[in-house]
Amino acid sequence: MFRYAAQVSYVGSCFAGFQRQPNLVTVQGALEESLSALAGEGVTCTGAGRTDAGVHARGQVVHFDMPSRWDLERLRLAIRARLPRGLEVIRLAEVPGDFHARFDARWREYRYLVWNARWCYPHMEPYVWPVRRHLDLGVLRELAGMCLGRRDFGAFCRSADRPDDSVRTMMRCSVRRFGHLLVFTFRADGFLTNMIRILVGTMLEVEAGRMSRERFASLLEGGHRSRAGRTCPPQGLFFWRVGYDPSPWGP
Amino acid sequence: MFRYAAQVSYVGSCFAGFQRQPNLVTVQGALEESLSALAGEGVTCTGAGRTDAGVHARGQVVHFDMPSRWDLERLRLAIRARLPRGLEVIRLAEVPGDFHARFDARWREYRYLVWNARWCYPHMEPYVWPVRRHLDLGVLRELAGMCLGRRDFGAFCRSADRPDDSVRTMMRCSVRRFGHLLVFTFRADGFLTNMIRILVGTMLEVEAGRMSRERFASLLEGGHRSRAGRTCPPQGLFFWRVGYDPSPWGP
Repeated sequence: MFRYAAQVSYVGSCFAGFQRQPNLVTVQGALEESLSALAGEGVTCTGAGRTDAGVHARGQVVHFDMPSRWDLERLRLAIRARLPRGLEVIRLAEVPGDFHARFDARWREYRYLVWNARWCYPHMEPYVWPVRRHLDLGVLRELAGMCLGRRDFGAFCRSADRPDDSVRTMMRCSVRRFGHLLVFTFRADGFLTNMIRILVGTMLEVEAGRMSRERFASLLEGGHRSRAGRTCPPQGLFFWRVGYDPSPWGP
Repeated sequence: MFRYAAQVSYVGSCFAGFQRQPNLVTVQGALEESLSALAGEGVTCTGAGRTDAGVHARGQVVHFDMPSRWDLERLRLAIRARLPRGLEVIRLAEVPGDFHARFDARWREYRYLVWNARWCYPHMEPYVWPVRRHLDLGVLRELAGMCLGRRDFGAFCRSADRPDDSVRTMMRCSVRRFGHLLVFTFRADGFLTNMIRILVGTMLEVEAGRMSRERFASLLEGGHRSRAGRTCPPQGLFFWRVGYDPSPWGP
């Protein structure tokens, strides 16, 4: 068997999430169908993260095993020829047989895009959360700084999916403005279900003055989901990239 | 009557072009339907430029007359509430009764986006022309420089639409690279039918070595359409903005 890693990018609205599900078009399902057709046998693929329905990916990473060795560009074109619209293989690498897209990931980076204006270019609409009232970048940056480090993010997890250990390490958390576009960046060793969407929703509650900074700080030491803010919509969220050491794409 | 100017933005693939046509969804048709419903009488609108089917707009400008005076934000929301998906009113201004979106335009600016890589993020696909072979930015910039000034662009016009006077003045013509994205910018006092799409197609012919710089130079002094390159696809083209003096949006 020959193991490959692939960077894949997809439009969230085209899929019922990453994870294979019977009778639904999913990213994993579409990739496995294409790979299995090429291999002439069942091929499974494993992703670095499981994105929810409607969430986009720029740099999801998957690994899979093929029974024969392929030229990388030939394999890339052969896979994508069998993929549905909205899903693309960006690059491929042959990796050691023990490479694991999920367990070997040192960090995952997500970005959340907010379009902060009364109007929105229709070209951007599928990729942003539109927020009409003017957002104070200074406040949002202060809150982003509070998320850094080793924290209990349990309050920022969909209740049904809360694990026993909800402590994660946030390595980067920033908010930048490019004109009307606000880009929230989150890099951590792992994320809980809906964690970023609840974090952004809660940060906007504090920014609006509907929640105190003290309560936000206490939520970052653990707490109940019901104390945090709303889950903001999936179409603003992008799975941006995954860090490995060494990188499967080379230096 | 009260005259208004509006900046409108639209996704080209949602419309059969700007100009009203019976039994087709067009930008002008959709705007006029919405305005007429608000006015309770027929309202026509006039655009700064007539974009073809599939061509996008970030900053098309239209003017129209309403029988009563409106609060600008109320009018904007009322218009957009009656618009189909993919069309948005970005901003509105009340303008003098002799303002004319088309005749008062000092210049129009279009941008053409080329995605220059073997792969493309699926989010970008509706808005770019994908070109797989690596393009030489130096050559393209040299060709862009040759387009500047007062020239006979007749060879870069769809034959059937070629006017008697095909001389236009190109005030800006540049090519910039942002990673894999090439942005061609064209600013002129006016454009011929398909002019930018034929210009970009021909520049890529020269870049590929299939046409000489001398022939490209001679085409810019007039010439037959058949001597120029192919018309590249509409989805990479954006009507970016229109220059007025004074600006309807204020200083």
